[in-house]
Amino acid sequence: MNTIGHLFKLTTFGESHGAAIGGVIDGCPSQLKLDFDFIETELNRRKTAQTSSASQRKESDQIEWLSGLLDGVTLGTPIAFMVRNEDCKPEDYDALKDIYRPSHADFTYEQKYGLRDWRGGGRASARTTLPIVVAGAIAKQILKEKDIKVYAEVAYMDDAEQAQKEGDTVGGIVECRIMNVPAGLGEPMFGKFSAELAHAMFSLPAVKGFEIGDGFALARMKGSEANDTFINKNGKITTLTNHSGGVQGGITNGNDIVFRVAFKPIPSISQPQQTVNRAGEACEIILGGRHDVCALPRAVVLVEALAAMVAVDMMMVARE
Amino acid sequence: MNTIGHLFKLTTFGESHGAAIGGVIDGCPSQLKLDFDFIETELNRRKTAQTSSASQRKESDQIEWLSGLLDGVTLGTPIAFMVRNEDCKPEDYDALKDIYRPSHADFTYEQKYGLRDWRGGGRASARTTLPIVVAGAIAKQILKEKDIKVYAEVAYMDDAEQAQKEGDTVGGIVECRIMNVPAGLGEPMFGKFSAELAHAMFSLPAVKGFEIGDGFALARMKGSEANDTFINKNGKITTLTNHSGGVQGGITNGNDIVFRVAFKPIPSISQPQQTVNRAGEACEIILGGRHDVCALPRAVVLVEALAAMVAVDMMMVARE
Amino acid sequence: MNTIGHLFKLTTFGESHGAAIGGVIDGCPSQLKLDFDFIETELNRRKTAQTSSASQRKESDQIEWLSGLLDGVTLGTPIAFMVRNEDCKPEDYDALKDIYRPSHADFTYEQKYGLRDWRGGGRASARTTLPIVVAGAIAKQILKEKDIKVYAEVAYMDDAEQAQKEGDTVGGIVECRIMNVPAGLGEPMFGKFSAELAHAMFSLPAVKGFEIGDGFALARMKGSEANDTFINKNGKITTLTNHSGGVQGGITNGNDIVFRVAFKPIPSISQPQQTVNRAGEACEIILGGRHDVCALPRAVVLVEALAAMVAVDMMMVARE
Amino acid sequence: MNTIGHLFKLTTFGESHGAAIGGVIDGCPSQLKLDFDFIETELNRRKTAQTSSASQRKESDQIEWLSGLLDGVTLGTPIAFMVRNEDCKPEDYDALKDIYRPSHADFTYEQKYGLRDWRGGGRASARTTLPIVVAGAIAKQILKEKDIKVYAEVAYMDDAEQAQKEGDTVGGIVECRIMNVPAGLGEPMFGKFSAELAHAMFSLPAVKGFEIGDGFALARMKGSEANDTFINKNGKITTLTNHSGGVQGGITNGNDIVFRVAFKPIPSISQPQQTVNRAGEACEIILGGRHDVCALPRAVVLVEALAAMVAVDMMMVARE
Repeated sequence: MNTIGHLFKLTTFGESHGAAIGGVIDGCPSQLKLDFDFIETELNRRKTAQTSSASQRKESDQIEWLSGLLDGVTLGTPIAFMVRNEDCKPEDYDALKDIYRPSHADFTYEQKYGLRDWRGGGRASARTTLPIVVAGAIAKQILKEKDIKVYAEVAYMDDAEQAQKEGDTVGGIVECRIMNVPAGLGEPMFGKFSAELAHAMFSLPAVKGFEIGDGFALARMKGSEANDTFINKNGKITTLTNHSGGVQGGITNGNDIVFRVAFKPIPSISQPQQTVNRAGEACEIILGGRHDVCALPRAVVLVEALAAMVAVDMMMVARE
Repeated sequence: MNTIGHLFKLTTFGESHGAAIGGVIDGCPSQLKLDFDFIETELNRRKTAQTSSASQRKESDQIEWLSGLLDGVTLGTPIAFMVRNEDCKPEDYDALKDIYRPSHADFTYEQKYGLRDWRGGGRASARTTLPIVVAGAIAKQILKEKDIKVYAEVAYMDDAEQAQKEGDTVGGIVECRIMNVPAGLGEPMFGKFSAELAHAMFSLPAVKGFEIGDGFALARMKGSEANDTFINKNGKITTLTNHSGGVQGGITNGNDIVFRVAFKPIPSISQPQQTVNRAGEACEIILGGRHDVCALPRAVVLVEALAAMVAVDMMMVARE
Repeated sequence: MNTIGHLFKLTTFGESHGAAIGGVIDGCPSQLKLDFDFIETELNRRKTAQTSSASQRKESDQIEWLSGLLDGVTLGTPIAFMVRNEDCKPEDYDALKDIYRPSHADFTYEQKYGLRDWRGGGRASARTTLPIVVAGAIAKQILKEKDIKVYAEVAYMDDAEQAQKEGDTVGGIVECRIMNVPAGLGEPMFGKFSAELAHAMFSLPAVKGFEIGDGFALARMKGSEANDTFINKNGKITTLTNHSGGVQGGITNGNDIVFRVAFKPIPSISQPQQTVNRAGEACEIILGGRHDVCALPRAVVLVEALAAMVAVDMMMVARE
Repeated sequence: MNTIGHLFKLTTFGESHGAAIGGVIDGCPSQLKLDFDFIETELNRRKTAQTSSASQRKESDQIEWLSGLLDGVTLGTPIAFMVRNEDCKPEDYDALKDIYRPSHADFTYEQKYGLRDWRGGGRASARTTLPIVVAGAIAKQILKEKDIKVYAEVAYMDDAEQAQKEGDTVGGIVECRIMNVPAGLGEPMFGKFSAELAHAMFSLPAVKGFEIGDGFALARMKGSEANDTFINKNGKITTLTNHSGGVQGGITNGNDIVFRVAFKPIPSISQPQQTVNRAGEACEIILGGRHDVCALPRAVVLVEALAAMVAVDMMMVARE
């Protein structure tokens, strides 16, 4: 369950303070000359400390390519890569070994596995999303050849600097658009394009909502308002409006795929919080360590990456 | 891609006006005495013509059980079942053979497959959700033995009778709650409980949004407001609030799973609509046939069914 | 686990004396006009009572097509079909309810599921292979368009009439050849063409051995004898010999795929046999009912069918 | 397709002369204290240069553990590991860049991918089986807790020293036994225990045959000879003989699982060979480099490893 995709597959591994974070991409077409500069650019978009709302962990994030390449060209075999974890300060987390941070995954991981890597969030750390950026960058390169573009941006975010001053954190909404997707992608019933997107987005930490097209607003519209009229535009059938967000009956209609993803605030606030420890005893914690104030600045590239991966995967399934 | 589930799997088949609609459940435990009365009760909840906002197609929906049972007890082998399609009036759809109804799947199916079953929506018809109710009823029976309950209701729906008078349709929101789910279900990274739920819900026709816990509202909260404080309640660790909707880090925490699903209005309105035909020529259509004014009354049992299936599946994956 | 295939998928259902036997084919290309006569011809090759070595159960094997077709043309949606079980005489099996027939699946099914359908072998009956013939016939039709042929024959079978006189049964070997397969099919590591074939063949009842090319004989050859020399034959690279059976490194090389499948004798012999019942008490049984003397005559079309399905599936995976 | 297993999954990566060879194990139970000494012992069984029939490449095979562990204990998250490729002499292979070695995968990989890693066999090299040994060692540790043992040995191998003198190579047969497997493992139809084993074994390089129990010999037996009589042995139902190799109807019966795997001779012989190059021109090659004379000594541990992995996986599927 650490694998995503049907034909373009990414398996990820790694904990925040383990030896390394990485992934294996299986199903990437052969003979693709990887654009390493672009991959690095994408990684920089995710990297810590880019903005005032980001945490201070220094990550050089130097990718080591382990397999699947010959002179930078894909062989068609699995592409494995990793990034060593540096600047680990597990001692920052010593005090948290036996304590369940509110709205973190400490408690649930322990319930599931009987133990957890308590150092920096372990497998549940946002750091484990790094391989998604790598796979997403490669997916984007594949899409680029077909002139398909993926673009996300922050649609809503509270004043993060103010929150930081208050020792608080904020959430927000990312909106993403996939442009120039051919009509006919997505599978009926349990492989709908929208369902694949929703599944992918909910794989990101802190995601609590997903909507496509006009989404929740459609629940309050009349059919006469919500329907997208088909028109003939210069010989091509398209729709006048795009309330559907490019997907009808689970299958793309050629219009832009438009969707939004809601992120809850990062649960690591600096204010004192009440919680319990493993023994069930009430206690107060003040989280030290280095934390982002908002996930959004990093999340934009992650949303794009997963969107690109889904698009490539669905194209492969459709054998385009 | 007509299969859902990892270990408790449902494969569905059937078009609205084909010979039959049905499914195959693979992975159902053996030695379960099926509660056929309950299954029928659930099917009645979905059936047409129950409410004023429902369409008038008469469906007897008599299930034929084809395999996997001996004297009503599950054998552990695939349970196949079907319902014959009756009261088919394909002639109702004759006029629509070459026309793309706005916001329906006519155009996208044709783009994907090069042809489509134009009779009553074909595979994209809401009728094809019937097998989900059957599998969901069986899943609920499995959950019942573990004292787990699934309950959904309409959280928002516009005045449907008024819409009907105007020849219009409405959408709405269904809220669902899974109670008494053990902590520790769901898989990190790409098999999160929330991601599995989102994927399942987006498999329903007309679904355009999904949120868990406080969902999109969390995007506008501060961390200090959104965090769920852990408490010790009579020796059991739980949370004071449930903004997270029972899922943290993708894994259940033992609290109620709470989520909402947004449905767009049914696209089949009675008002005249502009569209194009296969040749790309503009035309006006007035949809006859028999249509619901709102999907919500039927959708409640579907949301419950898929929620139950996901819960059973995730329990099996966790080998509980 | 009742599904085979990655993109061209068959899910089967049914027990020997249940209501029906059938299958769901998911992933069949759209716009294929099914050759129903050919499917019937293939089913006749499998049907009981064709040869002196076959059993006497009368099976009309009339297929009912349930979905996925419009005027006999595939829609791209799941193709479901079934055959009613007729001429069931469960009373033939009454005496066997609590007894484990030697080398049958009675004991193992009961160990696995806690119960079993004791009527005629239940899910383990050879009758449950019928859906494979249907899917195989459709796969052959797809291959035919690409000029690929599948041909199997009995390579070894003992004198079955003699065995019948002695109240005994025989096994045998089926050899199969897939001709004109393009080079480059099959996936490295865990999706080798040979591995997929082996897996498929071992899904047939009574199969106990599988070899490709010179198979077990290769274990006794020298490299200098076993190697297939590459040659240029009229501008096309091929091999002088075909010890490899058309697969090298798990991937097809363009030569004929040649493999053999070993079937054990049918365990239902007419001679008295010692065994135990559910209580563990020793007892003697004499099997009545209607049984084949040898599985081979029916097995030929099954081997072909699965070979065709694997070839279509691997072509789809390779996006050919 | 570089992943094996349903719940206990191994994904492998790496080419012979790339940066590293490795794997990701997903689905390993948490709280298992890995026996690193045992893993090293198993790796040594596979390592080059152990016997006179093995090649001379020096491989230190030092495993780096990348994730999934805390103080040597499994976390339940993916266990990634790798071994750097050392002592690479790609220049040994310079002359082979454009030439197809007989019965190697050079030609088929190029047909499939349009290019290949020509250095030492690339992805098709036997070196890429190393991760299987690691996963197998962990699987054996899991089985050990349930008192299940896996043991393989060379059942047939020609005089390899003699072959070496002649510049030739030999194949052989490995026999494997899984002892103390509980009855009831394996799934009917397309997940038979025997089918899973066959699929796994055919994933090894050079495998050309697989048989279970008496295998191909059963094809020449009568039913009366081949049937395994059930007996009550000290209150436990078992069989007097084990012609079936522990599997009946695809499901384990509690007896030893016994199977044999046929390996073709290693195609890299030292004698001059005729072949063609990429341009289709005939040429003679004499293979330098370092090659084994026989795969068997290394193959024994690989067969055991995959058998252990299949057993663990099938136990998980059966939720034992």
